[in-house]
Amino acid sequence: MEEFCFGVDVGGTTVKMGLFAGLAEPLHTWEIPTRTEDGGKNILSDIREAMSREMVERGIAPDQVVGAGVGIPGPVTDDGVVNHCVNLGWPVVHVREQLSNMFYHLPIRVGNDANVAALGEAWFGGGKGYRNMVMLTLGTGLGGGVIMNGRIVHGSHGAGGEVGHMPIYTEATRVCNCGNTGCLEQIASATGLVHKAREVLVHNTFDSVLRGKKNFTAKDVLDAYLAGDPAGKLTVECMLDFLGRGMAIIATVVDPDVFVIGGGVSKTGPWLMEALKERFDHYAFFGCRDTLVLPAKLGNDAGMYGAAALALTKE
Amino acid sequence: MEEFCFGVDVGGTTVKMGLFAGLAEPLHTWEIPTRTEDGGKNILSDIREAMSREMVERGIAPDQVVGAGVGIPGPVTDDGVVNHCVNLGWPVVHVREQLSNMFYHLPIRVGNDANVAALGEAWFGGGKGYRNMVMLTLGTGLGGGVIMNGRIVHGSHGAGGEVGHMPIYTEATRVCNCGNTGCLEQIASATGLVHKAREVLVHNTFDSVLRGKKNFTAKDVLDAYLAGDPAGKLTVECMLDFLGRGMAIIATVVDPDVFVIGGGVSKTGPWLMEALKERFDHYAFFGCRDTLVLPAKLGNDAGMYGAAALALTKE
Repeated sequence: MEEFCFGVDVGGTTVKMGLFAGLAEPLHTWEIPTRTEDGGKNILSDIREAMSREMVERGIAPDQVVGAGVGIPGPVTDDGVVNHCVNLGWPVVHVREQLSNMFYHLPIRVGNDANVAALGEAWFGGGKGYRNMVMLTLGTGLGGGVIMNGRIVHGSHGAGGEVGHMPIYTEATRVCNCGNTGCLEQIASATGLVHKAREVLVHNTFDSVLRGKKNFTAKDVLDAYLAGDPAGKLTVECMLDFLGRGMAIIATVVDPDVFVIGGGVSKTGPWLMEALKERFDHYAFFGCRDTLVLPAKLGNDAGMYGAAALALTKE
Repeated sequence: MEEFCFGVDVGGTTVKMGLFAGLAEPLHTWEIPTRTEDGGKNILSDIREAMSREMVERGIAPDQVVGAGVGIPGPVTDDGVVNHCVNLGWPVVHVREQLSNMFYHLPIRVGNDANVAALGEAWFGGGKGYRNMVMLTLGTGLGGGVIMNGRIVHGSHGAGGEVGHMPIYTEATRVCNCGNTGCLEQIASATGLVHKAREVLVHNTFDSVLRGKKNFTAKDVLDAYLAGDPAGKLTVECMLDFLGRGMAIIATVVDPDVFVIGGGVSKTGPWLMEALKERFDHYAFFGCRDTLVLPAKLGNDAGMYGAAALALTKE
């Protein structure tokens, strides 16, 4: 019998959904709007309805479905409870219990979206074929997820994989969103690159293509680096050095087979993985120097794939 | 039926052995010499004989034994193979397979001694009652072990928990044994404390109790710190700061419930756990600030206890 499952990635504006049959590519993917009004009270019933409709249309019975995985943009307890998710308007919501009660009492697995996206890349994407993977998502901030033996390392407070807040960026001059100063994401993220480039321009007199732009972006900084611009060079080399060192540090804790690099900043091209591998090798413990650095493959769908992987995970 | 198992911690001079009945304290512990001569070819048969003799004396039948765990002072593959263990004189030895073949074909589980000792502290010692623990052993070097959901995180190259080689000690002036410069153990270990204190004495002119001693030890440095000596203060505060930061970094990767601190340096007293907790809190991601810092309890027996835990681990 074919084992179906649903992968559900709940975002602040849309819910990405996929119907999967085992570890193959999804049979169907679609989106529904996230109705955050009224304390987000319709979100779970909307998801339930979308899954039930899909089953009816395809003639899938409840006993052919192993369950659903759900990624949530906020911290999730081991029991599948979400405490005050601002992006969804949620107070305390027992996602696992409530959704299961609505949905034929099928097993529901719930996880934090960054961790779930990492699981997606591990099972279906850039980390496919490797047991132990660390995902680094270079977006507005630096997200992370640690996958050991094919499972998410949530940690005791859901802070497993919060490597963006690793206190190693000793050059930081600002306070991070988390309240600390010196977090890795203060340099290794789109926001971090822009801030660092501004500092570089203030503290140096050299000419730079970035001086002509009032509000330059991380992409501008990366393009400047690739064009040999001195401000781009100082900024991006600083980022590569701290991120490569951060990866070497992570390797002394969990020693993955592979680092998978995703997020908007990673779209700059394959050179980024090569440059990070070089810095990683420089700092890495000798036993870890054959650890790989590979690009993410699933983009914004990683969460949906990972939610399906969560549903398929054996207890 | 009572489930017996053996915990075996193989060291360079003696093998520590224990007979356990489940998770209770061992029924009997004893030691045999480690015969490293002739490429260590007698070590496994000596262990087998010691276990068999114990069973005969107590009237324990093979089907009452769930197996044996073995800690080895070197890297161990997932298949229980040891590659060139200098301390034991071993070339490549298939410990799991060979010992099982000699010992009623019972299951044998093999692990690196630092990781196995961490497992012992997690199941029987300072980390008992917590699912997720990181052990830090402040000895000649800085050993470590990461236990998640009650199991060792070996990593892909057996380097999981090698946090002593985390490249964060930016003040390092020497090369570490591993070949890198800047490893945490270059300050956070007995050797590290002595080296740092020597540097402090060279770079400062103040009086210090350490100046009177030609070959002072880490204990002398810690005692000097506790007596308010300026060189002791500079040295130990540097160690506390880097180690506290290192623990905060580890928490962003695996987010344990508890750090358990062992090794010779930890014998200085409970003040060390309090001081490390204070530095940890300073650097830690806000979600992790209730993480505990507790002393190890099992001393040199941790490896034997952990080997028993390994034997009792369900696949």
